[in-house]
Amino acid sequence: MTLRFGLLGAGRIGKVHARAVSGHPDAKLVAVADALAPAAEAIAGQYGCEVRSIETILAAKDIDAVVICTPTDTHADLIEAFTNAGKAVFCEKPIDLSLDRVKACLNVVRANKGTLMVGFNRRFDPHFAAVRAEIDKGAIGKVEMITITSRDPGAPPLDYIRRSGGIFRDMTIHDFDMARFLLGEEVSEVSAMAAVLVDKAIGEAGDSDSVQVMLKTATGKMAVISNSRRATYGYDQRIEVHGSNGLVSAENLRPVSIEIASSLGYTRPPLHDFFMTRYTDAYAAEIAAFIKAVNTKTPAHPSGEDGLLALALAEAALRSVKEGRTVKMTEFA
Amino acid sequence: MTLRFGLLGAGRIGKVHARAVSGHPDAKLVAVADALAPAAEAIAGQYGCEVRSIETILAAKDIDAVVICTPTDTHADLIEAFTNAGKAVFCEKPIDLSLDRVKACLNVVRANKGTLMVGFNRRFDPHFAAVRAEIDKGAIGKVEMITITSRDPGAPPLDYIRRSGGIFRDMTIHDFDMARFLLGEEVSEVSAMAAVLVDKAIGEAGDSDSVQVMLKTATGKMAVISNSRRATYGYDQRIEVHGSNGLVSAENLRPVSIEIASSLGYTRPPLHDFFMTRYTDAYAAEIAAFIKAVNTKTPAHPSGEDGLLALALAEAALRSVKEGRTVKMTEFA
Amino acid sequence: MTLRFGLLGAGRIGKVHARAVSGHPDAKLVAVADALAPAAEAIAGQYGCEVRSIETILAAKDIDAVVICTPTDTHADLIEAFTNAGKAVFCEKPIDLSLDRVKACLNVVRANKGTLMVGFNRRFDPHFAAVRAEIDKGAIGKVEMITITSRDPGAPPLDYIRRSGGIFRDMTIHDFDMARFLLGEEVSEVSAMAAVLVDKAIGEAGDSDSVQVMLKTATGKMAVISNSRRATYGYDQRIEVHGSNGLVSAENLRPVSIEIASSLGYTRPPLHDFFMTRYTDAYAAEIAAFIKAVNTKTPAHPSGEDGLLALALAEAALRSVKEGRTVKMTEFA
Amino acid sequence: MTLRFGLLGAGRIGKVHARAVSGHPDAKLVAVADALAPAAEAIAGQYGCEVRSIETILAAKDIDAVVICTPTDTHADLIEAFTNAGKAVFCEKPIDLSLDRVKACLNVVRANKGTLMVGFNRRFDPHFAAVRAEIDKGAIGKVEMITITSRDPGAPPLDYIRRSGGIFRDMTIHDFDMARFLLGEEVSEVSAMAAVLVDKAIGEAGDSDSVQVMLKTATGKMAVISNSRRATYGYDQRIEVHGSNGLVSAENLRPVSIEIASSLGYTRPPLHDFFMTRYTDAYAAEIAAFIKAVNTKTPAHPSGEDGLLALALAEAALRSVKEGRTVKMTEFA
Repeated sequence: MTLRFGLLGAGRIGKVHARAVSGHPDAKLVAVADALAPAAEAIAGQYGCEVRSIETILAAKDIDAVVICTPTDTHADLIEAFTNAGKAVFCEKPIDLSLDRVKACLNVVRANKGTLMVGFNRRFDPHFAAVRAEIDKGAIGKVEMITITSRDPGAPPLDYIRRSGGIFRDMTIHDFDMARFLLGEEVSEVSAMAAVLVDKAIGEAGDSDSVQVMLKTATGKMAVISNSRRATYGYDQRIEVHGSNGLVSAENLRPVSIEIASSLGYTRPPLHDFFMTRYTDAYAAEIAAFIKAVNTKTPAHPSGEDGLLALALAEAALRSVKEGRTVKMTEFA
Repeated sequence: MTLRFGLLGAGRIGKVHARAVSGHPDAKLVAVADALAPAAEAIAGQYGCEVRSIETILAAKDIDAVVICTPTDTHADLIEAFTNAGKAVFCEKPIDLSLDRVKACLNVVRANKGTLMVGFNRRFDPHFAAVRAEIDKGAIGKVEMITITSRDPGAPPLDYIRRSGGIFRDMTIHDFDMARFLLGEEVSEVSAMAAVLVDKAIGEAGDSDSVQVMLKTATGKMAVISNSRRATYGYDQRIEVHGSNGLVSAENLRPVSIEIASSLGYTRPPLHDFFMTRYTDAYAAEIAAFIKAVNTKTPAHPSGEDGLLALALAEAALRSVKEGRTVKMTEFA
Repeated sequence: MTLRFGLLGAGRIGKVHARAVSGHPDAKLVAVADALAPAAEAIAGQYGCEVRSIETILAAKDIDAVVICTPTDTHADLIEAFTNAGKAVFCEKPIDLSLDRVKACLNVVRANKGTLMVGFNRRFDPHFAAVRAEIDKGAIGKVEMITITSRDPGAPPLDYIRRSGGIFRDMTIHDFDMARFLLGEEVSEVSAMAAVLVDKAIGEAGDSDSVQVMLKTATGKMAVISNSRRATYGYDQRIEVHGSNGLVSAENLRPVSIEIASSLGYTRPPLHDFFMTRYTDAYAAEIAAFIKAVNTKTPAHPSGEDGLLALALAEAALRSVKEGRTVKMTEFA
Repeated sequence: MTLRFGLLGAGRIGKVHARAVSGHPDAKLVAVADALAPAAEAIAGQYGCEVRSIETILAAKDIDAVVICTPTDTHADLIEAFTNAGKAVFCEKPIDLSLDRVKACLNVVRANKGTLMVGFNRRFDPHFAAVRAEIDKGAIGKVEMITITSRDPGAPPLDYIRRSGGIFRDMTIHDFDMARFLLGEEVSEVSAMAAVLVDKAIGEAGDSDSVQVMLKTATGKMAVISNSRRATYGYDQRIEVHGSNGLVSAENLRPVSIEIASSLGYTRPPLHDFFMTRYTDAYAAEIAAFIKAVNTKTPAHPSGEDGLLALALAEAALRSVKEGRTVKMTEFA
């Protein structure tokens, strides 16, 4: 069965998903919508699909599923509208910046028995997925302590920062999801520290650019996350999971595998400098997982609940920083 | 300009090139030919092209270029026929197993002022290409000594071995081309040693399965090549270039970047176990280079002469083993 | 000038220091004391020094300096007695498990204008020292975020655990000192999480075996520490310092530099399994630093104050766990 | 039993062995001889031994063994004299630059039933020894192909070059011994190439500075050696052994284990730049092996025959270069 897609939003990430959908043997990109006509037309031209309005796509009989890549503040409304219309929904993270709005939205999805998958693409990175597979195989025994290092090559524009909901909701949220994915248990306690070390303007905009977070589950499993908005050496994305029988880790990907030795030492080139280059394979794999889930009528993961729980962890981290205390997740129940 | 392709041969490597041509924005796969109809039809079905005979493709006005993936003993004839017909030719290595036949074929190409590119795909591997780029940038000063390690995961079927022209012409030929590519000078002397260590049947078929070769240029630059038909740890493909100011090397690619530590030590998974997986990017890049050369009317590299010279090195290695001496390339002028 | 040493305590760590003192060209081991005569005699026999009582060493005119390796609860009294006697003191960490006792002891040292150096050996590890040297050279710009991973091969005996003062005072204290050493600023805030994941008996003894700690300075520099009492893969000792211009890290030392590749993958042997093997060079270097400080009449580092401040961080971590909050170091002023 | 040593030659390598002997619990350095009195006195002062003439040491009853570190052209005479005198002999490589002289010398040793060990220190490097141990354990199955990379940080003075017997006898000889040590079979065929790439003056002195050699045993096992007199990145010493079930390799040792990441990439410091720093542990271990062999009256390895066979390989390599052919070792029987 070929799943017929509408793409909502033709920006940077929309293009990534357009390519993933078009390249999948069981999917077809039927229509694209964007407030900016040229953006939509570019995708339509490249992949041979129609430009339509969101309303038209919502009403269309030749659309089975949508990929939502519009601005964050439209996500929840679109998820509700499209699950109401019986269409499967893949939505970029986050569902909304408000925990209450997300809860309300998920109630609608649940009432509709709709399919909702949230774009935590890193779960589909082959390397991180291999880490999880080793845990599942028992290679390291019981998971005990996780270290997630996640640093961006450079800070986004201030305008983006201001609309982002803050570093915990915008950047760390991926690491919260990864921690949940690898811990295999729900987090019960959160403690966080935040600072402005990269750019004062980020602080003046009310946000932080450097944060570290500790998580703990009810049985005592723990994780630490270290984030910075700027790493001169590239997009630093590493995971280590220490368990009762060993350690499994995923190293950074390198654009080229060369090394140059000289009197200055042995030098390997910097890391990827862009998340789309680093996670190319992950984006394709997550859309493939969505298509498979819809076609086989099995639950799609990461689910709306996964999106909710990662956002709650972001809220908890923010509260921990503000109140100088370890926050219990029961406060967000 | 869209370059219109015919694909001759729909086997394993034919499929690789069909994907590369079809995925290129400036190319179109128009027709495919194969003695086995189902193979041709499979490609035609997947990429939406026609099944035609080689003769029809030769005469077709809607074909600008061909990719030759037929058995080796047909290569030279097809190259001649298609350059006679004014079509650009990309041919899998080798052009022929006979040095004289290759020379004759190249004379025809030259007379036709035809475009001929030979499929030494490794030059287009991003990692090996980066090695060459560093040399060209002067990162290691003057090239002095090269070490090429090239081992297959496992020996091919005996039937293949028998038709292969022997390990030097079939396997080492890639390393000969790589050595020439990196030395930046023509090889003047060759010494080789060969043994049967992997499988006695290979020896009984008149071939070797483990060889090492030394090369030297007129100015004294040197290279060593180490080949085995079997490496339990995967497809081992490494290059080191030592120069007057340093060393540049390309490590093996790893399917996943994970490492597992336990009481047994720190373990990374084995290498790729198949040349097509290892060189996926290289195959796409070499077709892109061919398309670009044809479209911009610039010389295509590696050229027919590159194919000839690599084959001559294979002949020299064979002669060195047989006669127990260092062979001068002037013997093959 | 040859510095004449008395060694107080002839146990495991006493032997390490006996070797370091004896092997130093500017030092001489004159006497050793231990409650267990055979232990003292073993060292006396090996290094050609006398067995004496602590009292005799205290009164001796041929002793310039002592190395205190006795049980922790004797450290502060001995430091006071020997600085009162005008002898330079090198004392194994910690000075005492009670912050107040340490403060009182340091007052005595100060009043005596005595020399006191505390055995935070890791500062003298050539690899960690190289990390600090790179920071001092400006290689990574301003220090921003530090990650310290420190895991023991296996938990010590329960009897040791019970007398240890708990994991923060016994194990993490080394990492607290390292964090201070690398941050270059005093820590102002501490948050910690602790769990019993390795051995329930450790929990029943009132201690934890797995902890993670976050530190922050007044200017926002941060550090995370991850500790476990058990790592199947060996003694895991790593440091990463992320700065405004880059990252400097120290990898684990490997007993042998070999790697074995097979169909199971690429395996390097496990890490050192004992702190004395891992830090052999560091122990020799710290005694050398002590000798040099005494001989050149320059301040010895790490000082008694360094010992005090690391202990205060351990107290703060414990309080953070107990009270579920971020603890300010001003509480310990 | 304490083995009482005389040291013949107090130069650079003599100092290394003086330290090794003095630091060994079962050995005592009794006397040192050198044509230059200050050199001998320096060692005597440092280790508390006497300065004597070689003749006095030869006649002394309080000397059980000697370490010969005098110029190469005295080695064979001294070995004969000291084994005649019933003393165990450790001699730095080579025994002599002339194969005939070595054979004659070994006949004397044999007639005396003397103990002679030759200083191929690399066999005792813990990392290379671990490679051999893995082979012996069967970790890689049957040995098939060896790659030895051995490059000096910089060329020695021309004066040294002129007296060295040439690069094969002076430098490659270590790699010939290592190849024999790892192949586990005698080499039957040698082919070599040599060039002057580093310094023309070396060529004018009749020597080469860059060589590569291939070896082969009767059963087809093979090795390649790549040597350069100059590597800007340090003392490059690596070994790879490919076998029927896998590969075992020894990486270069690194003075410090740090890595610095920046916008320029990930850089590790250069290698050791001096053979004595690189092989510190090996020098101590080889003297320990000698002491143990003498004390337990077991054969010492590497033996005089090992010295002879490595020199024969050097001769064969030289002949291969001169005559442009693969040389059979039967020519040197």
